[in-house]
Amino acid sequence: MILLILVLIGCPEPPILIPTAIYLVSQMKKKGYKILISANFSAIKLLDIADYDKYYLSDVGVIDIDKGLKIIKEFNIEKIISFVNKDSEVSYTITYKEILNVPTYSIVFGKSINQDFIKTLEERDIKVYSARAYHNPIPVVNIIDKLVEEI
Amino acid sequence: MILLILVLIGCPEPPILIPTAIYLVSQMKKKGYKILISANFSAIKLLDIADYDKYYLSDVGVIDIDKGLKIIKEFNIEKIISFVNKDSEVSYTITYKEILNVPTYSIVFGKSINQDFIKTLEERDIKVYSARAYHNPIPVVNIIDKLVEEI
Repeated sequence: MILLILVLIGCPEPPILIPTAIYLVSQMKKKGYKILISANFSAIKLLDIADYDKYYLSDVGVIDIDKGLKIIKEFNIEKIISFVNKDSEVSYTITYKEILNVPTYSIVFGKSINQDFIKTLEERDIKVYSARAYHNPIPVVNIIDKLVEEI
Repeated sequence: MILLILVLIGCPEPPILIPTAIYLVSQMKKKGYKILISANFSAIKLLDIADYDKYYLSDVGVIDIDKGLKIIKEFNIEKIISFVNKDSEVSYTITYKEILNVPTYSIVFGKSINQDFIKTLEERDIKVYSARAYHNPIPVVNIIDKLVEEI
């Protein structure tokens, strides 16, 4: 049975999202994990173009974040990691966790850090990492390095 | 003498910018061109993280877009391609073209297409490709495919 890490990617509005998502997937793969990405339509297109030759995303599954809710139980998901910049991404994280009931980690980031998001996620027993970052990816890269070590 | 294509990348605010910039560089390299990127600070960091293993950006030079203005004449630039979403990027394109006096191509894109940008660039004999695109990269990808063919 192959155990998968599920990576949730919502709206790709923040400039750092796609680059750091590729970085996360790449670092997790180097640790031997298999990855499934559940993402919004534009995010999927952006990942596809940014890594056109599939150097980073080969053997990475990709599903639509809404359709995924209906079929995600068919996969053997071991853990969830979500990027959270907007309210809708808090909801996706909580909903996927409720369906799968597996350890869940959220990277909460943005021009400012939304404390309500952190509180809501932590109340659902979700481990939160947070960083103020929007154009410069380094604060989120540092979080990812820590997360990849700790997971 | 190695001839280079200069790719200008300004503010990375639009979600499609970094993925499509990597795609452009990758497609140009496949055609045998050598590439020099002149970009803003955050854009350089984002390119670095999105292609952490340097699968796409190996042997691609990267310089700061402001510092580049002072040293760009030292390189044998054959052509310029710029991404234009903001006013400042119109200025960078015109300034680099004035310094180098080589054929210049601009990809003007955004939530809407700014006709003033197109007019200003065309008045300076810059060839403009335009697309309404911000979250979904495909319209700009189609432009890049055309540009790579025509250049």
